[in-house]
Amino acid sequence: MSDITNLMENEVFRAFASYATIILSKMMFMSTATAFYRLTRKVFANPEDCASFGKGENAKKFLRTDDRVERVRRAHLNDLENIVPFLGIGLLYSLSGPDPFTAILHFRIFVGARIYHTISYLLPLPQPNRALSFFAGFGVTLSMAYSLLRNRLYL
Amino acid sequence: MSDITNLMENEVFRAFASYATIILSKMMFMSTATAFYRLTRKVFANPEDCASFGKGENAKKFLRTDDRVERVRRAHLNDLENIVPFLGIGLLYSLSGPDPFTAILHFRIFVGARIYHTISYLLPLPQPNRALSFFAGFGVTLSMAYSLLRNRLYL
Amino acid sequence: MSDITNLMENEVFRAFASYATIILSKMMFMSTATAFYRLTRKVFANPEDCASFGKGENAKKFLRTDDRVERVRRAHLNDLENIVPFLGIGLLYSLSGPDPFTAILHFRIFVGARIYHTISYLLPLPQPNRALSFFAGFGVTLSMAYSLLRNRLYL
Repeated sequence: MSDITNLMENEVFRAFASYATIILSKMMFMSTATAFYRLTRKVFANPEDCASFGKGENAKKFLRTDDRVERVRRAHLNDLENIVPFLGIGLLYSLSGPDPFTAILHFRIFVGARIYHTISYLLPLPQPNRALSFFAGFGVTLSMAYSLLRNRLYL
Repeated sequence: MSDITNLMENEVFRAFASYATIILSKMMFMSTATAFYRLTRKVFANPEDCASFGKGENAKKFLRTDDRVERVRRAHLNDLENIVPFLGIGLLYSLSGPDPFTAILHFRIFVGARIYHTISYLLPLPQPNRALSFFAGFGVTLSMAYSLLRNRLYL
Repeated sequence: MSDITNLMENEVFRAFASYATIILSKMMFMSTATAFYRLTRKVFANPEDCASFGKGENAKKFLRTDDRVERVRRAHLNDLENIVPFLGIGLLYSLSGPDPFTAILHFRIFVGARIYHTISYLLPLPQPNRALSFFAGFGVTLSMAYSLLRNRLYL
């Protein structure tokens, strides 16, 4: 093994690796939630998925949309739209030598906000629960982007 | 702080960090554009989002789709579909020791093309403005992928 | 050039770079597949895209959805939902000093499973072809996440 593992000896990078892995695993859970609702509510997007429930015209009735399934899919897409910037900006920010306390605080707020966002979306909780958790995660990512560009801009 | 910050002393990596942060921040702006159109046009996807505009049947009329909102959402999804490959391939390409001038040219074309793509999509400009900006970003990403695989393939 | 290229001398990291680039390039192919079906079937989402096929009311008939196009788009979105966690977790896992044989096996199964997933979705093959390829890729990503968190957790 070369000195590649030096990266993992860095406190901020190692914390980023842990928080990024946790929030990506949470995002993957959305796929299983969609599959769970599709199977228990018999709501499918593809004819081949409901072939075992009936043939021909009988199967077509399962090709529909459902509020519950669409809600999980919207939450999943919102995760993608927000976790991708966190991954990219957070990784580069971690490598830019930030203050460990500040950096880890950023990661913690982001992960907490996104978990609360999912809970608010799926239950659902009344607004502004979801809006506030969205903007907490959004603000933290912008704060890392600002810090990175201020200290390390090179165009 | 360990020698992790050596990465940021590398010209290409530092340029990649700047351009990636800029284009991810631009992508995040699409979320606020969607929120802006949803609020000003009173078009919502979730019952809890328009609870303050009315109760019961009265609130349901806000649960609809709108051309303007759907256009922003398509632009956002197209961003995701193209910026994710740029992030992944661009990061690995930056670490593969490319010629700095060539590498930074790639990043600049990608970021310029994606910003022009967003403008073309949101105004909208007549085709082929959007198609050309899409293929410029697409071609630049494939060019980095080709360079990476030609020089560093290891399966 | 600084010692940044040391990363690419690491066997696992270099293999990750190759497999990640291959699977991202495959995902980019979905965009061209969507464009191909849109053009050959004359199915568009934006008025400006079909302006050359007719004016006014005549053009509106091309603004519709089509089973074939929607199928490609669902496959593309499923790719995004699964390749983003692979990219993030796989990158961090590669940097955590795993056993090379185990790590490369993970990457190979993931890439093979996602290519088979695309084939199953687009042909389509009967279930459970697509479901099994989905869960193979999903399981491999979770296995890397587990290995990373077990060895390198830092909160």
